[in-house]
Formats: sequence, C-alpha cells, structure tokens
Amino acid sequence: MSLLVVGSVALDSVQTPFGSNADALGGSAVFFGSAACLLHPVQMVGVVGNDYPFDQLERLAARGIDLTGVTRMDGESFRWKGKYSYDLQNRETLDTRLGVFAAFEPRIPEAFRDARYVFLGNIDPALQLSVLDQIRKPALVACDTMNYWIHGKRDELLELLRHIDVLMVNDGEARELSGDWNIYRAARWILEHGPRMAVIKQGVYGAVLVDRDRVFYIPAFPLEEVFDPTGAGDAFAGGFMGHIARTGDVSTENLRRAMVYGSAMGSFAVERFSIDRFHEIGPAEVTARVRAFADLVRFDVEPEMELAE
Amino acid sequence: MSLLVVGSVALDSVQTPFGSNADALGGSAVFFGSAACLLHPVQMVGVVGNDYPFDQLERLAARGIDLTGVTRMDGESFRWKGKYSYDLQNRETLDTRLGVFAAFEPRIPEAFRDARYVFLGNIDPALQLSVLDQIRKPALVACDTMNYWIHGKRDELLELLRHIDVLMVNDGEARELSGDWNIYRAARWILEHGPRMAVIKQGVYGAVLVDRDRVFYIPAFPLEEVFDPTGAGDAFAGGFMGHIARTGDVSTENLRRAMVYGSAMGSFAVERFSIDRFHEIGPAEVTARVRAFADLVRFDVEPEMELAE
Repeated sequence: MSLLVVGSVALDSVQTPFGSNADALGGSAVFFGSAACLLHPVQMVGVVGNDYPFDQLERLAARGIDLTGVTRMDGESFRWKGKYSYDLQNRETLDTRLGVFAAFEPRIPEAFRDARYVFLGNIDPALQLSVLDQIRKPALVACDTMNYWIHGKRDELLELLRHIDVLMVNDGEARELSGDWNIYRAARWILEHGPRMAVIKQGVYGAVLVDRDRVFYIPAFPLEEVFDPTGAGDAFAGGFMGHIARTGDVSTENLRRAMVYGSAMGSFAVERFSIDRFHEIGPAEVTARVRAFADLVRFDVEPEMELAE
Repeated sequence: MSLLVVGSVALDSVQTPFGSNADALGGSAVFFGSAACLLHPVQMVGVVGNDYPFDQLERLAARGIDLTGVTRMDGESFRWKGKYSYDLQNRETLDTRLGVFAAFEPRIPEAFRDARYVFLGNIDPALQLSVLDQIRKPALVACDTMNYWIHGKRDELLELLRHIDVLMVNDGEARELSGDWNIYRAARWILEHGPRMAVIKQGVYGAVLVDRDRVFYIPAFPLEEVFDPTGAGDAFAGGFMGHIARTGDVSTENLRRAMVYGSAMGSFAVERFSIDRFHEIGPAEVTARVRAFADLVRFDVEPEMELAE
C-alpha cells in the first residue's frame, strides 16, 4: 500500500501579520509528506541543492518518510519568498528562485515504482506525465497544478487529466482551468476531462469532493488563530492520500473520510510556520481533530421529516 | 408558537448577468415570510405605500402569512435597485428610495404581542428595540443588521444585542461589528455582547452557528445555477426561524437542524428572481433538499479511529 509523492522540496521565507521566518522547510512534497506520514509511510521524490538543511529533512525520515528519491544536486535549492495580506487571504510573491528545481527531472527509484497511491505535486504537467510512465500499476493517482501550467502548458495538462483519478486544485485554479466561476460546474468540467473525482479546495471555507453522482462538503476547521497559510493545500493532500494509503480503500465513502483527514491536516499546517506543527502532534491530536470535525457538521434530520403537504 | 417578523416590504429591481426584473416583491420581511411560511404560519409587520401591488402580497396571505401588521401609508413604497457582478459575489446599489419606509415605526398589533418567536429584520436598531418593548414574552429573538447601523447607530445596536438571543449577520457585518477579520473571534465578540448564539452567513460558502461551547457549520447547497442572490439571507432566516417555531424547541441540537432549513431556504431563494421560487415549492421540495444536505456532509469516522500511537 505504498504512498509516493513527487513535488518541490523548497526553502520558504514568509511574512505574515504575526511574524516572519526565513529559509524554512517548504515545498509541496515536504508539506504533503509531513502530514501524510502521521497516517502512513511516505516515499518522497524531489531535488534539493547542496545548500539544503538536510538534517532537518532527516527529522522527517525519522517519522516515516523515505528520502531515497530526494536527489542532491550542485547548486541552490528552490527558494520562495512571499508576503500575506492582513487577513491572510491574499499573498504576494516577493521572490522565486528555482535553482536546481529548474532542472528537476523526476527519476522514480526502482523500489518506488510499485507505489499504489501517488500524489503529483504542482510541477510541470509534462514531468507529472513522466512520473506516471515510471509507475507500474497505481491504484489511485491524485494531482495538483497551478495557474502557471493551466495557461502555459494547457495541452500537457489536458493529457495528464486523462491519466489521473483525482484532480485536487483550489477554487481559483478550477475556475481558470474550466473557464467557469461556479465551482460545481467547474468540477463537472474536470470530470468530463478524465478524473473520476475533483477535489476543490476553498481555503478558510473548506473543500468539496465531487464525483459524477454526488457532492461532499467538508468545512475548514474553525480556528480562531491562523498563523501561516503556506502549505495548507499540500498538507490537505497529505491527509487525504495518507488516509487512503493507510486504509487501502478507494471507495467513495472512504474518500469522504479522506477529505476529513485532509481538512484536519490543512488546519494543523496553518497553526505554525513551515511544518512546525507536524513535529508537535501525533495520532492522538489527529484523532481528536477528526472527531471534532464530526461534531462540527453533525445534525439529525430524521425527527424533522413530518412536514405535511 | 406564533412567529413574528418585522422588516422591510419593498419593491426590488435587480440586474444580474442572466436577466433583470423591475419592481418585484422584495424586502427582508417578504423574503423571510415566503420561506418561513412553508414551515409555520407567519405574522408580518411592515409598511408599504399605496402603490404597492397588494394583490401579490395576498398570494402570501394564502400561504399562511398574516398581513394584519402590514400598514398601508400614503406615499411611495420602499424601492431598491441593484446590479450584480458577473460572478454574483458583489453588488452595486443603483438606487434606494425609502419612501414610506423612512417613517416606519413598527406598531405590533395586539394579536401579535404574544409572539413566541421573533425575527427583527434589518431596520434601525432603535426601532428593533421598540419592537421588543411591545412583545410580552418571546422564547427566542433573532436579529439582523447591516453596516449602515453598525457605524451609524452603534450604541443602539449594542443595547439591542443585550436583548436578543441570536444575532444573524453575514461575514462582512460580523467583521465590521467586531473589528476582527476571523469570523470565529468575531462570533466570540458577539457572544460577549449579549446573544447566546451567533449565526454568521457566508454566502456561497454556507453559514456557521456559534455558541459558547460549540461551532456548527452548514454549507450552502451546491447549485450549478444561481440566478439572483437577493434575499438569500432573509430566506435563510425564514427557514431557521420557521423550523424553530414549528418545533417549539430552542435546544442547540434543534438550532443545528434550523440551520439546515435556513440553508435550504437560502438555496431556493437564489434559484429565481424575487420570491418566485417559493411559489413553486411545497413541503416535498423542502424535505428533499434537507435530506440532500444530510448526504452532502455525511461521513462516518468511527471505523477510522484505530491510529496507533
């Protein structure tokens, strides 16, 4: 039931109204792995420069992340620097230095090629396709993307959609991709282009899981303190895929539960800078938060069905 | 178990990307009543000019709305004209003519003064207080307001908060009132100023019910076609209060169910112009939509609690 993630391994410098940090662990594969490894072992594929604080990555290895697929190259690591608005709802990129990430060509180690569950973090869709070519028989492939690829590599992205099971994007990306503001019509557009499921993340408003027949809505966890939204979407993906890999069940009912684990992990991610919160928590905290989600949306309609015509 | 609403009875002219209408029934009391009367009889208090299409109001009377408290005055009815953005997420007021509404001083008919459930639509908080002075022993009072009063009549609004059970506002209003962007902190601020419950509506993202101990989240119904958002908040209030009045139960569990009826009625409101959708539906449609909400958020976490430490 192995779980593979391919994505960026970066160093983030983030300014929020509550503080700032510099060169902290970030990137889609790191946030995904930090969350997913609380649920299931993770195989990670990425690239870092020889300036990367590999000792900090080793802390993740101790939590069940196999770093065999993280290549060290001569050069600088991928760095992103951003600043959030007062309400954390918008962010401005101050600097992006791709470094060795610009030359990233994912090579999946032989030991990872039997991965059953695969998450393709936000990288060039041509590279995402090349990863799938290297995986023998995945049971479920989920994929993220971004506006840069939606506009710049649309043909490759449309080809990729024909080969994945779940497209997991935020609402803005779903709108750009489909050309439709309504996220439910956008989800239908996605389903018509290949995936059997669309997960559309809406930040503080939660996320929806849409398949051909049904819609499932999971709110974001009600937090009075949000510290740094960076990586929340990838942590969501980590919770989602980690749950699926742990249970080995790709039924719709189980994907609904996976959404809850996703939203739980997204909520942990935003409580601290970088992946710091994931170092503080274990199964007890995860279980408590998932139970809290059950209370958050629970209601009983059965006694109320006596409306007379 | 009588249910009273006091609010505006207006004529709306609305432009959306999908069409426009002119001088159609609108106003908080009308949207509230149109939704609530599907669940429970409604007593309405408001004022109209002698140009109001009273025959159209009579159609509501036939559905269980007592119009005894709707006064006809010499002069023009309250008219609002607005235009929505392409995505229906923003609207511009093109014209507001208060007409006789400017002189509205709610007089509650003697027969309405024993009302158990009271909704104070968005009017001057001084007038909302005067309504409460006329009600003998309400079991639950809910109240709406708007930015105009939050800034212009803050003292009166704060006094009002000490006398109501539920403040029901949208997220922007909750932020303006509390001075806090985070809606859960804003809700806490509201609870510290009197009400035992805060309902914060978030448009297409649903609504939250917050009390001192717990949070309940109900999404908006996943609609692929939204036609006209006007009145959705008041229809939500109508569903919420209609359910409470019908069941005569103000427990937290029942207020959660009331949120579902609220979100259901809000979703009907936006499917047509004005109150048109409410003329098309009956208990069967309401029940079906409430059941659909149950499926929208349903998941079972119990089998998934075996995370080992």
